[in-house]
Amino acid sequence: MQPDERLAVIDLGSNSFRLVVFMAAAGWWKRTDEIYEPVRIGEGLAATGGLGEEPMERALATLDVFAHFCRAAGLLADQGPDRAPIGGAVDAVATSAIRDAENAADFLERARERTGLPIRVLGREAEAHYGYLAAINSTTLTDGCVLDLGGGSLQLVRVVERLARGSDSWSLGAVRMTERFLPGKGPAKRRQIEELRAHVAQELEQASWLVHTGRRLVGIGGTVRSLATAAQRAAGLPSNGVQGMVVEREALDALVERLAALPVAERSTVPGIKPARADLILAGALVVQGVLQAGGFDGLEVTEAGLREGVFFERLLGDRPLFEDLRRTSVMNLAARYNTDAAHTRHVAALALGMFDELARLGLHDGDSRERELLWAACMLHDIGMSVDYDDHHKHSRYLILNGGLPGFSPIEVATIAQAARYHRKGMPEPGPLAALFEADDAARLNRCAVLLRLAEDLERSRDQLVRGVDIALLNGAPDGEERVELHVIADGEAAVPRWAASRETELFARAFHRELSVAA
Amino acid sequence: MQPDERLAVIDLGSNSFRLVVFMAAAGWWKRTDEIYEPVRIGEGLAATGGLGEEPMERALATLDVFAHFCRAAGLLADQGPDRAPIGGAVDAVATSAIRDAENAADFLERARERTGLPIRVLGREAEAHYGYLAAINSTTLTDGCVLDLGGGSLQLVRVVERLARGSDSWSLGAVRMTERFLPGKGPAKRRQIEELRAHVAQELEQASWLVHTGRRLVGIGGTVRSLATAAQRAAGLPSNGVQGMVVEREALDALVERLAALPVAERSTVPGIKPARADLILAGALVVQGVLQAGGFDGLEVTEAGLREGVFFERLLGDRPLFEDLRRTSVMNLAARYNTDAAHTRHVAALALGMFDELARLGLHDGDSRERELLWAACMLHDIGMSVDYDDHHKHSRYLILNGGLPGFSPIEVATIAQAARYHRKGMPEPGPLAALFEADDAARLNRCAVLLRLAEDLERSRDQLVRGVDIALLNGAPDGEERVELHVIADGEAAVPRWAASRETELFARAFHRELSVAA
Repeated sequence: MQPDERLAVIDLGSNSFRLVVFMAAAGWWKRTDEIYEPVRIGEGLAATGGLGEEPMERALATLDVFAHFCRAAGLLADQGPDRAPIGGAVDAVATSAIRDAENAADFLERARERTGLPIRVLGREAEAHYGYLAAINSTTLTDGCVLDLGGGSLQLVRVVERLARGSDSWSLGAVRMTERFLPGKGPAKRRQIEELRAHVAQELEQASWLVHTGRRLVGIGGTVRSLATAAQRAAGLPSNGVQGMVVEREALDALVERLAALPVAERSTVPGIKPARADLILAGALVVQGVLQAGGFDGLEVTEAGLREGVFFERLLGDRPLFEDLRRTSVMNLAARYNTDAAHTRHVAALALGMFDELARLGLHDGDSRERELLWAACMLHDIGMSVDYDDHHKHSRYLILNGGLPGFSPIEVATIAQAARYHRKGMPEPGPLAALFEADDAARLNRCAVLLRLAEDLERSRDQLVRGVDIALLNGAPDGEERVELHVIADGEAAVPRWAASRETELFARAFHRELSVAA
Repeated sequence: MQPDERLAVIDLGSNSFRLVVFMAAAGWWKRTDEIYEPVRIGEGLAATGGLGEEPMERALATLDVFAHFCRAAGLLADQGPDRAPIGGAVDAVATSAIRDAENAADFLERARERTGLPIRVLGREAEAHYGYLAAINSTTLTDGCVLDLGGGSLQLVRVVERLARGSDSWSLGAVRMTERFLPGKGPAKRRQIEELRAHVAQELEQASWLVHTGRRLVGIGGTVRSLATAAQRAAGLPSNGVQGMVVEREALDALVERLAALPVAERSTVPGIKPARADLILAGALVVQGVLQAGGFDGLEVTEAGLREGVFFERLLGDRPLFEDLRRTSVMNLAARYNTDAAHTRHVAALALGMFDELARLGLHDGDSRERELLWAACMLHDIGMSVDYDDHHKHSRYLILNGGLPGFSPIEVATIAQAARYHRKGMPEPGPLAALFEADDAARLNRCAVLLRLAEDLERSRDQLVRGVDIALLNGAPDGEERVELHVIADGEAAVPRWAASRETELFARAFHRELSVAA
């Protein structure tokens, strides 16, 4: 894609239609717009084999809205005299329900006539491929399996060394399974659940490769996101989306039990389950359980990307549609969106990583490479909150990090980056609203990241890279014989203020590295 | 100023030095950067009449950092060969401490030599003028008084029909009053407090105009902001800054009592009082009390703008440095910063205001003009959160509204706008985290604003202004005879989806207007 080019992806799913606009700019991309309608075009399909008149009418009216939107946004040429769209394109893709319906051709013709939208019907393999692209470019999966559960179908893709090695597809979507096995309004009956489970298990027998794949299972789709949100709420975890979250098998089992015991209308009382999905969620959860069972997976790793992102990534990345280093890409993408002072943030990162390495060399911490990456990310993102307001910009940076998302990082990693940015100016770091994610070593890691970021920021006080680096010495301090750390500031000129600023960090430094800090003139 | 021009204002105050960078763009402006150092150049001035060597050295080192920053940012020409700065300028202004010191000329010469920064020493009238410009362009004050309390001096400006009609200045700054009357480390003695009060009262006698001015007193400066923050915490109000907050006389009295009873080192245990200001805050509070007393004011209205904004506004606005309509300007400024789809937001506003007026005409509410303005603001800002992420963008809009600030609106007005934006997609509106600000009618106002915004957004679902307007009729519904409201959608084409979307708002509409809503085909 060209800089500032936009792509509108229209996803005609069995359960919902969605229009998503992506924008690619120099060095970054983002979703800029979205329209969602719970169309349920797949309603009744399992029974009749065709698209019903009412669902089709809902679908056509919705596509009409999408087409209006695309024309107004310059993404679609006006009908009639052929005018090219401006700086963008539309890619409308249809999946399982439309693919499988007897009268699909009729519907597609009516859609084209009424809206002027050309619609690509994805084959099972193409649908699986886009799901794979979404998962592989939003998680660190290298070996394992991608699960894509829609309203109509389930796709499983085997991944070896980040590449897709075959896929299978089944008509096990949440809408279909609900209509076939759980049509009632009351609590689910044990027999119904057992029949659904048996059906899924039997269908999945053909995927004998499942048990030989890597131990990671990554899931996409609305059902998966809902289950993760519910599991997150049940565990009392902070709710800034579910990207990178792992739903353990036990958590899923508990959720299934809770949902099955409720009448359909009450399932949305389970925190995290939206009313629009209340009737489908149980069947979806049972299908996911079936996959965990069949493949012997311990849990399901969730990504918020989906088919739409897969279509976009293919367009963005061209022939080799994989990010080289996803975690780095995520950080750079978020940093670039908020347009910070690149020279300053890069220098803060260089200073902080220099100190990190020096202190590891001196044996004050073990120089863990993952911790080093989190420190780097916090440095790159610490000032993005200035786009909201200068006042409290450290808090705004946290907000933007938590809500902008960093695909490829786990929730506790994102939380550590966010809290380090939160404490890059003052205060004693603490997990704060993210405490539920913090385990034993995480608080110590946060302290180390925060104090190194803060020292680097102090040294870069003039924002002109005056301080080139730091030498660190470990001294045996008299009179008590305790080791202490001395910072020597290497600067191109007079650096009194950076030294004063750095010398204010003694308390936090002592907490992080258990040594007294002094800053030499 | 030209579009994309920047102005760095350096404020050499008696208590702290601050560099603030403002940027003006097409149709909006913002603060983009800030460096703060608690220099205390006024330390010891009251006793000796001159700037001490240590304070001067701190000041020069700090100015050196500021100059480095300005050069790196292209705001200040390099020293030596005269090179013009790129797209910006620096305006360094000194106030009371430097103005009054015997050895000011010596300090200014050393500053110029070492940093190349030309410093303007503001006279008392000029200082008061900038404070006035800051206050008048960040509040709706038309008649009353502006109070500017710094470390060195107090300025009072009389305002009549938004214009400054004379000002007075006194050496009653917080640093000076502390050094002279409250030099100890322990709790304040009753006698010390009485002496300070008597001194302030005697000094203010010269301002006989104070009692004849309007009833509004607007305050600026760090002391005022700290007092407001402390009063906000004491009252359990949400803390998104103190812009537009009113500190009542009783709240200030309670705060003074609480602070006076504590030793200096413990005053920062009062929530809202920062350690760096703990030693000055009591004297500052007593001076403010004195002004309330002398002028018979009931409370102090707080603005976060200050001298620095005054200098910037003069540069931005030129010869007539007053915004015509501050509230409108604040909303447009915030909207423009986040670059939303202007045609869409304007049309949502037009549709919502059209319905507001129709419903008032039909007698369903009283058409209050202030409520109409809040609805307009919520419409203009409802989508700004999309700049953070599409997911949860209604919540991000609330965050940006609360934290970006809307000078000219009171805290409950900002809260109403923010919550209406928060509920522009779904859910039943509630005051949520802002509940402490909501009084009797505020929740009903929020319901009306939220449902009209939501209906307008539904009607603008295709984002291409397809729906031109709405006719509303009040019908006597059979069989129960209850009045109901019918919406007729006026569109340039087929508008089924907008109608469906609008018809989903019946529950909220009934709550807001106590009538059943139906949407006609």
